[in-house]
Amino acid sequence: MDSNSQSNPDRKKVVVIGGGTGSYVVLSGLRNYDIDLYAIVSMTDSGGSTGRLRDQLGVLPPGDLRQALVALSDSSEIWRKIFAYRFDNGDLQGHNFGNIFISVLQRITGTLESAIEEASKVLDVKGTVIPVTFTNCNLCAKYEDGSVIEGESLIDESPTKRPKIQYMYLNPEAEANPRAIDAIAKADFIVITPGDLYTSIIPNFLVSGVVDALSKSKSKKIYISNLMTKRGQTDEFTASDHVFEIEKYSSCFMDYVLVNNKKPAPEVIDWYLKTDNVAIVYDDFDERKVTEARILSRDLLGDAKFEQNISDRVKRSLIRHDALKLGEELVKIIDNRLSF
Amino acid sequence: MDSNSQSNPDRKKVVVIGGGTGSYVVLSGLRNYDIDLYAIVSMTDSGGSTGRLRDQLGVLPPGDLRQALVALSDSSEIWRKIFAYRFDNGDLQGHNFGNIFISVLQRITGTLESAIEEASKVLDVKGTVIPVTFTNCNLCAKYEDGSVIEGESLIDESPTKRPKIQYMYLNPEAEANPRAIDAIAKADFIVITPGDLYTSIIPNFLVSGVVDALSKSKSKKIYISNLMTKRGQTDEFTASDHVFEIEKYSSCFMDYVLVNNKKPAPEVIDWYLKTDNVAIVYDDFDERKVTEARILSRDLLGDAKFEQNISDRVKRSLIRHDALKLGEELVKIIDNRLSF
Repeated sequence: MDSNSQSNPDRKKVVVIGGGTGSYVVLSGLRNYDIDLYAIVSMTDSGGSTGRLRDQLGVLPPGDLRQALVALSDSSEIWRKIFAYRFDNGDLQGHNFGNIFISVLQRITGTLESAIEEASKVLDVKGTVIPVTFTNCNLCAKYEDGSVIEGESLIDESPTKRPKIQYMYLNPEAEANPRAIDAIAKADFIVITPGDLYTSIIPNFLVSGVVDALSKSKSKKIYISNLMTKRGQTDEFTASDHVFEIEKYSSCFMDYVLVNNKKPAPEVIDWYLKTDNVAIVYDDFDERKVTEARILSRDLLGDAKFEQNISDRVKRSLIRHDALKLGEELVKIIDNRLSF
Repeated sequence: MDSNSQSNPDRKKVVVIGGGTGSYVVLSGLRNYDIDLYAIVSMTDSGGSTGRLRDQLGVLPPGDLRQALVALSDSSEIWRKIFAYRFDNGDLQGHNFGNIFISVLQRITGTLESAIEEASKVLDVKGTVIPVTFTNCNLCAKYEDGSVIEGESLIDESPTKRPKIQYMYLNPEAEANPRAIDAIAKADFIVITPGDLYTSIIPNFLVSGVVDALSKSKSKKIYISNLMTKRGQTDEFTASDHVFEIEKYSSCFMDYVLVNNKKPAPEVIDWYLKTDNVAIVYDDFDERKVTEARILSRDLLGDAKFEQNISDRVKRSLIRHDALKLGEELVKIIDNRLSF
């Protein structure tokens, strides 16, 4: 379903490329502006509830789509809560209701496209959620020591540091969803969300046809740099390391990079370092010149929250982007209202 | 939600009391007639998907409500299919999606009443589905040998014959849902559905307040006799045995009893006898006078279907009432068009 289709032709078309919570935050920040929003979502998640549903029901991964749908939902709070509901005990433990819902819709309608259409109706989605591919594929990482890991969740969940990732690929090769190509072709702006660099963002660029569409697109490209490094993936990565990888895999030059300049509280940073061995992404744009993009250094930080995620039995501290701050800064770019 | 509330005051108010597939068939048969339909549903199911959700999520049993909601649904085929969807493998095996949905709605809205309201909207339910009670209770059976079994599923799933049931009760005592009492008070007709006598139908009468409301109600009462006996519950019960128990537990005299007079095919009866040790309910109304009700002997039989129920790994032959035939006969009574 394309809820943008009835829109004013003068409205800016903004394509948000990503997956997971990064997409969720960006879409939440942009949803209330008068723009046409398209969310292109990566389709390689294989962990947790999504992985179990993929394996057991033979469906395409619902998790990233679900987060995008909820972010763009204009329905009652009940429906947004239902889709986000996570079972914390019993044989459904760890499952997310929205994931189950999208999977059952997929089984009943026969296609993921129809499933998204139905879910978009229920959730009254403002915008269009587009899986980057309908090919059932696995994400693979080749490391500098020659080793290969296949499966997003195995790449993602690294208990220790790993050799540097040499390159990523999909197995089997995946064909782009024509609607993703179409959205990229017509975009005025393309926003690449923060999120796990190799397991949420880059998988979009690995889909055959996406890089070609991006290179042909006349859109302005905006990348939002990550706040934290990720163990086993981007240990010690600086902000320019992130941009370098994004430009390499997308084969595109970014026009703007949004970087957070507000430091989280020292105790939160310490907690991250001790429990997860991850750190704040260091802003080295003044020291290294890896990109032609205009660097926009802004306060983009959300309130850090300590949160007990019962279903995962993981205590998380959330250093996250603030959706509203992100939305404001993005719209300044989109509306050409950047202050100098 | 009461989707009958905007209705014509001259329309007949028909209250259907039951649970499970019996209710489903009766409601399906009546849903297209110009009457106000109220489905009062028993709330003691503790088996299968419903039992697991009760235990694990601490919710009230969703299964019988789900069947009534789907029977009265006017929404697209997709929604009806979604609610009936059963998982046949993986960690969701045996669960029914509609049950999960109603349970999550219950968790999120905080009450079963709001959950039914939301589900009724999604399913575009024509009529009103009313849980007979909101008390979380267990069904108990006291047998003639003095033994007691607590729990609907344990009473229901009897591998062998059992002593005759002496009486049924609920533990703890359950208070009637005021909306059930109100519907009974205002009813023009009360239809008691076929279904498992002691585990689906009678549990409604055990709820405190229901029998009193029934005895005060000026409605005409119609009972639809079962087609088959049930092992461990109603072995060798005749049609008048069924009516006797219904009149005893409801403390009401029936005005009409609908009995099927069309014999299923002999091979279907044989199959039932061999695999399930159950038989056709024998119509003995000409031989024994246990009720003052007018006996209406009609062809009410649906097409017997052999069906592989994958999730239960049970092969079932379905000797069922035909919804349309039932609806027609009931409406003849309701419209006072009985032929003599």
